[in-house]
Amino acid sequence: MKLNPHIAALPAGYLFAEIAKRVKMYSQEHPEADILKLGIGDVTRPLSAYVAGKMADAAAAMATKEGFHGYGPDYGYDFLINTIIEHDYVPYGVNLTEEEVFISDGAKSDVGNLQELFAPDAVIAVTDPVYPVYVDSNAMAGRLGEYQDGKWSRLVYLPCNAENGFVPSVPEEHVDVIYLCYPNNPTGTVLTKEQLKPFVDYALRNDAVIVCDSAYKAFITTENVPHSIYEVEGAEKCAIECCSFSKTAGFTGVRCGYMVIPKALMGDVNGEKISLNRMWQRRSSTKFNGVSFPVQVASAAVYDEQGWQEVMESIAAYRENARIIREGLEKAGCTVFGGVDSPYVWMKTPNGMKSWDFFDLLLTKAHVVGTPGEGFGPSGEGYFRLTAFNTKENTIEAVRRIVSVL
Amino acid sequence: MKLNPHIAALPAGYLFAEIAKRVKMYSQEHPEADILKLGIGDVTRPLSAYVAGKMADAAAAMATKEGFHGYGPDYGYDFLINTIIEHDYVPYGVNLTEEEVFISDGAKSDVGNLQELFAPDAVIAVTDPVYPVYVDSNAMAGRLGEYQDGKWSRLVYLPCNAENGFVPSVPEEHVDVIYLCYPNNPTGTVLTKEQLKPFVDYALRNDAVIVCDSAYKAFITTENVPHSIYEVEGAEKCAIECCSFSKTAGFTGVRCGYMVIPKALMGDVNGEKISLNRMWQRRSSTKFNGVSFPVQVASAAVYDEQGWQEVMESIAAYRENARIIREGLEKAGCTVFGGVDSPYVWMKTPNGMKSWDFFDLLLTKAHVVGTPGEGFGPSGEGYFRLTAFNTKENTIEAVRRIVSVL
Repeated sequence: MKLNPHIAALPAGYLFAEIAKRVKMYSQEHPEADILKLGIGDVTRPLSAYVAGKMADAAAAMATKEGFHGYGPDYGYDFLINTIIEHDYVPYGVNLTEEEVFISDGAKSDVGNLQELFAPDAVIAVTDPVYPVYVDSNAMAGRLGEYQDGKWSRLVYLPCNAENGFVPSVPEEHVDVIYLCYPNNPTGTVLTKEQLKPFVDYALRNDAVIVCDSAYKAFITTENVPHSIYEVEGAEKCAIECCSFSKTAGFTGVRCGYMVIPKALMGDVNGEKISLNRMWQRRSSTKFNGVSFPVQVASAAVYDEQGWQEVMESIAAYRENARIIREGLEKAGCTVFGGVDSPYVWMKTPNGMKSWDFFDLLLTKAHVVGTPGEGFGPSGEGYFRLTAFNTKENTIEAVRRIVSVL
Repeated sequence: MKLNPHIAALPAGYLFAEIAKRVKMYSQEHPEADILKLGIGDVTRPLSAYVAGKMADAAAAMATKEGFHGYGPDYGYDFLINTIIEHDYVPYGVNLTEEEVFISDGAKSDVGNLQELFAPDAVIAVTDPVYPVYVDSNAMAGRLGEYQDGKWSRLVYLPCNAENGFVPSVPEEHVDVIYLCYPNNPTGTVLTKEQLKPFVDYALRNDAVIVCDSAYKAFITTENVPHSIYEVEGAEKCAIECCSFSKTAGFTGVRCGYMVIPKALMGDVNGEKISLNRMWQRRSSTKFNGVSFPVQVASAAVYDEQGWQEVMESIAAYRENARIIREGLEKAGCTVFGGVDSPYVWMKTPNGMKSWDFFDLLLTKAHVVGTPGEGFGPSGEGYFRLTAFNTKENTIEAVRRIVSVL
């Protein structure tokens, strides 16, 4: 049987699986260790009671003739799509039609599957360090060439580091697709509208697509940081935006997200104009059967007045944790980035330590789990990610322990 | 931007989207028409109250510290996986380990995504007529060559028709992958263990993989019809099985399924032995984030004594509808197949009528929606699918109307 050589050839395991393995191994050898996890970006606070209540009501009603729902519309229910447009776009001056928003089971699925729209030899660019899904999903499709010395030969890396203030430059060469993620995972940094504009201009000039992952937009507080790439003029002709309820509403275990593909985004296949929105419709209706009905009801409830208030209380709590990490580490003399418009704090490892060495040090000496920067790409080496997804008490304790082993 | 030419080149729309369009257009022009839908395979009976109650409880508990769940295990919770093994496999003498079962958001996603494991030039075989997802998902990946006169040039068709009693022959040439679906969609027919065995033998002899879609297995009543392909000796070395709660438990709007990839199923990449189970693990952990927690709780509740009893009441009701269609059409002189171990009845169109013509006739004269056989592949021409997913009253009325226009 002829198998896909690009899945077989992928280096090591998926980053977070590797971390889980190391933590599990250490825990088994040291069952007494009280390990604090600031590694994976998983929320820890319970759902909004209001939102969970709406989900429960919809679930219970599925046993009644009136409340039962079979297959939903392939791309999501209008009641959810319209609510998203009204709350997440209209206030920022972005106008979308119902057909431009696709409901999914989460942004990871969307950003992983989206690459199917591109040709096998499309050239991909990512900011570096980067959320591994953009890279791995393209590697599995055979677009990235050979993996050598921690780099893919056909992937264009756009470094983000302390030297350039975490503002990437546009590619020097032609690329077909650029993945952006703002507020950024893993660095926690943001781009202003003016810093984002060169990417839109590049894409329009070079016939490229921007895939913008906005999973963390609920954390934005700084003025002039756009909540959608479509706030930048012309982006509707070159950008796809992926969003999620995972971080906004604590839905990591509930599973719902959405993707915007504007109708104005057109490409070219064998000389014929083709709409990426239509291509995604075709892909989706063939390989996906929509999101659980009670989950869509819960997602819409997030935007109700009470839902939004409760959801934002959790965001505020995580933001406070980010502040505690940021200020605690700074006070101890560390260099840190992010953590303002984001639940992620990106620190320089002490004394230029390798990031996996720092991971092992924190795990074994401080019993704190973070994420080694190198796991996010070559420019992540020498950095380390800590997340605000924990209780305030644990966050304070984790910072105390980290500082004690520096 | 370089786009995937194989999505752009796909013929027409997805079958059920095309049907929905025709029905919508007719309804708009004839708003008074009371249209009975026996077309798409969507369940119509409310969920088991017991199962929905368990889902509602889990959803409500997500707002509590104890009941909250963030990211679950990538491949599903053990409580669900173990329940599936115990109820769906052990009684049939099939032994599986936890790592061999993957929970997903449904069989459509699984059978659509699974082809990513195969090489771009892998040769695919399907029984014909066939559920369109196997074909379209491989077409999008560029494996099927050109589409001409209703056929893909690189796809191997295994005809199933009245002449061969709907028992397909194994391919004459080497193929890498064979898609089977039993109880069959669309024909409603089944294979006995002895009729399935040649496929397992072929796959073992030819280093091929069988992808067996068992979404309708809850409908099986006939003795010696296997509930799992693993009842056939050696299948664990060559077969993947896709299952779903959609039809078993009415979960078309709830979204849960599972896939079995035995560890004994090994392939070869560049001379190196590789486990398809491991490849799928890698694929899944990169592009998928698991199934909604309350949905997994509901899925496990299906197997509780009360859940199973309620779920089987619905299956019995659908079976009764299938009997009504089958016997009603037979009495009117039609030639019909299936409808015993399946919710689908597959009828020969009257007087050799083209299947889309018969679709239009039933829609406009009888106000009944079915599915034209030609939509399922070349060997489906001259046949028509009717489904048992409706109320008993509507089923009786639909049969009356169909018979009246024959």
